[in-house]
Amino acid sequence: MSSAKFIERYRISKPDRFRLADFNPADTAGLSLDKGDIKELLEQDADLLGDMQERLYAEDKWSVLIVLQGMDTAGKDGVIEHVMAGVNPQGCIVHSFKAPSAEEIDHDFLWRSAIRLPERGRIGIFNRSYYEEVLVVRVHPDLLARQKLPSSLTGKDIWKHRFKSIRAFERHLARNGTIVIKFFLNISRSEQAKRLLARLDEPAKRWKFNAGDIAERKLWDQYMAAYEDLIRATSREHAPWYVVPADNKPFARMVVARAIVAALAPLDLNFPKVGGGNLKEMQKIRAALLNEGDAKASGPRRKNG
Amino acid sequence: MSSAKFIERYRISKPDRFRLADFNPADTAGLSLDKGDIKELLEQDADLLGDMQERLYAEDKWSVLIVLQGMDTAGKDGVIEHVMAGVNPQGCIVHSFKAPSAEEIDHDFLWRSAIRLPERGRIGIFNRSYYEEVLVVRVHPDLLARQKLPSSLTGKDIWKHRFKSIRAFERHLARNGTIVIKFFLNISRSEQAKRLLARLDEPAKRWKFNAGDIAERKLWDQYMAAYEDLIRATSREHAPWYVVPADNKPFARMVVARAIVAALAPLDLNFPKVGGGNLKEMQKIRAALLNEGDAKASGPRRKNG
Repeated sequence: MSSAKFIERYRISKPDRFRLADFNPADTAGLSLDKGDIKELLEQDADLLGDMQERLYAEDKWSVLIVLQGMDTAGKDGVIEHVMAGVNPQGCIVHSFKAPSAEEIDHDFLWRSAIRLPERGRIGIFNRSYYEEVLVVRVHPDLLARQKLPSSLTGKDIWKHRFKSIRAFERHLARNGTIVIKFFLNISRSEQAKRLLARLDEPAKRWKFNAGDIAERKLWDQYMAAYEDLIRATSREHAPWYVVPADNKPFARMVVARAIVAALAPLDLNFPKVGGGNLKEMQKIRAALLNEGDAKASGPRRKNG
Repeated sequence: MSSAKFIERYRISKPDRFRLADFNPADTAGLSLDKGDIKELLEQDADLLGDMQERLYAEDKWSVLIVLQGMDTAGKDGVIEHVMAGVNPQGCIVHSFKAPSAEEIDHDFLWRSAIRLPERGRIGIFNRSYYEEVLVVRVHPDLLARQKLPSSLTGKDIWKHRFKSIRAFERHLARNGTIVIKFFLNISRSEQAKRLLARLDEPAKRWKFNAGDIAERKLWDQYMAAYEDLIRATSREHAPWYVVPADNKPFARMVVARAIVAALAPLDLNFPKVGGGNLKEMQKIRAALLNEGDAKASGPRRKNG
């Protein structure tokens, strides 16, 4: 099955009809693949992605923005680690968004993401993102109050307005050469319970446990409603959402890798060709370097030579 | 005449009908004010603005973005110096946009402006701005080529798309508590000639002369067409353009000051009130400080005391 075809079932192409309940967190596309096979497919895609990233970097025209969202324990860190395993870190910048700083709160809600946008030729990964502004901030009204907005601007339309701002922001990025791809790692409430228990029980995982996660877990339904609303409002062809079944970690990683590969494939990335006059010039320089003699010498060069 | 009424004639409220030719750079509103009177009016407004900025800073809810555009010698630096004379520099940040750096070129065209947006409670002044992206970049196609955009994104619609991005950007800022005010300092071609000659002739002004200004002057008509187009496309009630007659420097400064004062007046800025429990708490702290004795002592405190 081609990447493009395979990931279609997870891309939200008809946002008006989107219902989160239609997406099963435990889905594995009816594939009866065992864990080893899925891992092999993931590794193939990760290699391919490493290769694409090299060309992206060399071409220096497009940039890629990957947005990762999901409840605690949904597997965001694991996705970054495994999907980006083949990518040169110099061409890939991950930013994890935590609670905003005082300086960040003193700007509009997109600002702290905007300043971290990837440069041309780079892949930028947002581990959480500006979407938290219509998630955690929506579920916790005190966080909105802390943003010190003039009261005339915090009426009931604020979420609709934030969706508009986000759509315009992503459309602007797309128009200026950024490929935007967004993933919601969709785990079930029961799978989260298992993973939180593992964090409590396994000494090597305990550092990841955060008592705050339990408080957020109690707001599960509000979060799911907020996710459904934002996915309906911000799924666009130039900035699609993928709702990734995430109860099975290896499967989730494979879906993300395939979706990124499928998004970059149409760019037909290539190493810039050197031809004509430049090639002749390079041949001259090559000859001159060889004539210097050093290139033939086998001994190590002196450090300050 | 009230500020709001006076500056109405320079605000573009019907952008579809805007024609630059209708605006006389030598206009002084039919006022027969001599230079001294205009200066006095400007000083009044500058004081008022200093007072407003203090309240803006204390309230910490709104921010102000002032965009200054104009041809070389139009008087942008002088406007900043004289209009902001009464404003505390801690609450007012000026950024002058020059040729973009390599890092800036590697991002979308709004990025270098976005990262410099004023914080809540501050006035930010852009001396030139993202509007250069539809001015100098439009007049010089080689500058667009240098931005390394994928060729599929640099078709004939690019300026229309940039206007859309700018409109969405400013709408987003307005919705999030930034007052956006934009000034085009409109000088005539003949007045520019006089000012360039002064830079050549007067030793104290020579440092401001730049041979590149002469090259740009030759493209006067293209620049004026680009200004007309962008003012038509991006004048909105929440982010208005003022076309300021700028052949008379003191008059231009007065218009800008009045327009800013008029834009901030409806915010009804006030120092946050302290009342009830907080006031009682403050009185307790006051009493405790007095009891410490140091507050009454007249001698200097020891540095590490």
